Amino acid sequence: MRTELSRRLGIEHALFGFSPFPAVAAAVTRAGGLGVLGAVRYRAPAELAADLDWMQAHTGGLPWGLDVVMPATRVEGVTEADVEAMIPATHRRFVHDTLAEHGVPELAAGEAGGWRITGWLDEVARSQLDVAFDYPFALLANALGSPPADVIGRAHAHGALVAALAGSARHAVRHAEAGVDIVVAQGYEAGGHTGEIATMVLTPEVVRAVGPLPVLAAGGIGSGEQIAAGLALGAQGVWLGSVWLTTTEAGPLSPALTAKLLAAGSGDTVRSRALTGKPARQLRTAWTDAWDDPAGPGPLPMPLQGLLVADALSRIQKYEVTPLLGTPVGQIVGRMDSVRGVQEVFDELTAGFERAADRIARIAGRDG
Amino acid sequence: MRTELSRRLGIEHALFGFSPFPAVAAAVTRAGGLGVLGAVRYRAPAELAADLDWMQAHTGGLPWGLDVVMPATRVEGVTEADVEAMIPATHRRFVHDTLAEHGVPELAAGEAGGWRITGWLDEVARSQLDVAFDYPFALLANALGSPPADVIGRAHAHGALVAALAGSARHAVRHAEAGVDIVVAQGYEAGGHTGEIATMVLTPEVVRAVGPLPVLAAGGIGSGEQIAAGLALGAQGVWLGSVWLTTTEAGPLSPALTAKLLAAGSGDTVRSRALTGKPARQLRTAWTDAWDDPAGPGPLPMPLQGLLVADALSRIQKYEVTPLLGTPVGQIVGRMDSVRGVQEVFDELTAGFERAADRIARIAGRDG
Repeated sequence: MRTELSRRLGIEHALFGFSPFPAVAAAVTRAGGLGVLGAVRYRAPAELAADLDWMQAHTGGLPWGLDVVMPATRVEGVTEADVEAMIPATHRRFVHDTLAEHGVPELAAGEAGGWRITGWLDEVARSQLDVAFDYPFALLANALGSPPADVIGRAHAHGALVAALAGSARHAVRHAEAGVDIVVAQGYEAGGHTGEIATMVLTPEVVRAVGPLPVLAAGGIGSGEQIAAGLALGAQGVWLGSVWLTTTEAGPLSPALTAKLLAAGSGDTVRSRALTGKPARQLRTAWTDAWDDPAGPGPLPMPLQGLLVADALSRIQKYEVTPLLGTPVGQIVGRMDSVRGVQEVFDELTAGFERAADRIARIAGRDG
Repeated sequence: MRTELSRRLGIEHALFGFSPFPAVAAAVTRAGGLGVLGAVRYRAPAELAADLDWMQAHTGGLPWGLDVVMPATRVEGVTEADVEAMIPATHRRFVHDTLAEHGVPELAAGEAGGWRITGWLDEVARSQLDVAFDYPFALLANALGSPPADVIGRAHAHGALVAALAGSARHAVRHAEAGVDIVVAQGYEAGGHTGEIATMVLTPEVVRAVGPLPVLAAGGIGSGEQIAAGLALGAQGVWLGSVWLTTTEAGPLSPALTAKLLAAGSGDTVRSRALTGKPARQLRTAWTDAWDDPAGPGPLPMPLQGLLVADALSRIQKYEVTPLLGTPVGQIVGRMDSVRGVQEVFDELTAGFERAADRIARIAGRDG
């Protein structure tokens, strides 16, 4: 699976694996792809530094990347406390009542729960970047809008390529104009923040809009045949996130959540604003139902919603309150039905791509 | 583009072209695909017979198909008048007011407007079938649920294969159990009735669920690279509907509607219940906005909604009231930007498939 972009990055397969877990990202890199560590869950810079040390030690000099969430619109000097102060009391009460209804225990004073995902605050993203630039990452991705010009310049000076996710051709063109090197076209069926255009339509549309800039297909890709489809659509590589959530290396996920992922069908996700305030595909749970219920107060805009629910999600995760327990994941969750190592999943993906390539050759009448 | 299914049907390319216009369907067949005439807009059996005569005369003995909408749940003996009587007065008033607001003229007494799409009434579908079985169609498709057992038996005795559209693996399995020969996996991005699972995820899921039964990929396919993607996903053929709407042979569409289709982007469609009572992707218009507005009465269930709006849509079409003028169409509408003949579109599709096959071979390292 070689493309112009995989050659440029010096990777064996044009397969990009996104994960919030260093063990997954490093294993993708070791398998011959490019592992990208999602930084959004890190709060303390020292914690990120420790994991980047680990990444560096476990990738044997092969290229890896980092994904930081930098909001496109940011207000200089606004702190987390300022944002906290903007959250209405009715919304805090709704969080309290929903948790109480499901008997979710309180955290002890000062105790950190599971993850407190606040990395989309500009303040937090900047502190992550200050740490990250001490490490030789090969790719810096931004999951939300174009990275600021100074960050792009700094990444280029660092020798890294810059990628940005886009849910429409219009966003992709904005990224290209901002100086981004790679556009990740993320379709409707993807986990996390998505637009409404499906990968089948979005990928070629973005390729046309920004070519010859390389495009990665993202969304709906969790098998070798889906990789072949993404590449047939004109992408120079594929970006997979969901498929790694049920790997052995995704150990930090609770057993209860892993069980929910293994049991879920392709129709068990929802594109909801419950998590961050922007539409993000995730497991449908009693938590997303509560926020999507027209009778409730509804989600706040980003970044308020993320901050509002951060502690609640920590508690739900820590105490494994199954009905409320969720995670961003794409429609391919229906296909995730066993826990295996990253290397095994990776081998199956590349072998499946080979089979799909054979199939296309046969249909085109080129099987000799 | 040959698969086991294309060989079985005796067609050159595994490309199925659906259209409500005989001139389009016949041209797809003549080009080497299999043209499928949508019968939903026919009301008078004699009118359908005339168009089937025409199809037969213009396909030179090559295979063609017919698509009839037979609802999965039907109530024996219920007439159109019975259904009409179930429509609430508030909904009739809403139709009247919305049309008045946009100055849509009345039809003269007894005058037929554009199309009055009531073909999803069992009564109408049955009368269509009685006409159709006088013609040697090679494929009978049902756009809504599995065809009734007697219809499947009659089609098989007629020497035809039976296809049914499915938006989920569960529906596909139901079709297979009912004795259908081909499942059309219709993804979220498709025009017309769709579920929420995108083609990229739905196609392989349906292939796994009903294999070795052949599956056609539908939704998001309007270019050769999208055809290659659909086939890479395990489909034995592709089903295209939207792409023909801006062909020369789709002459019956009004110039105003053609202009709207040419101007629309991939984000200008909506999955709305405004047309039939079930979610169907179509151009987003002031008409769909009115029905999707939470402040309005909202659409009625099928078949009430279709009957309620039939005359209104006729008037909107006849008088080309641009803000309200729409049609079922998929997200690939963003790519439909010129009016060309079916043969030219078809040639571009097959050439594009060849280019995509070359690309996959190169990426797989098989370019010799």
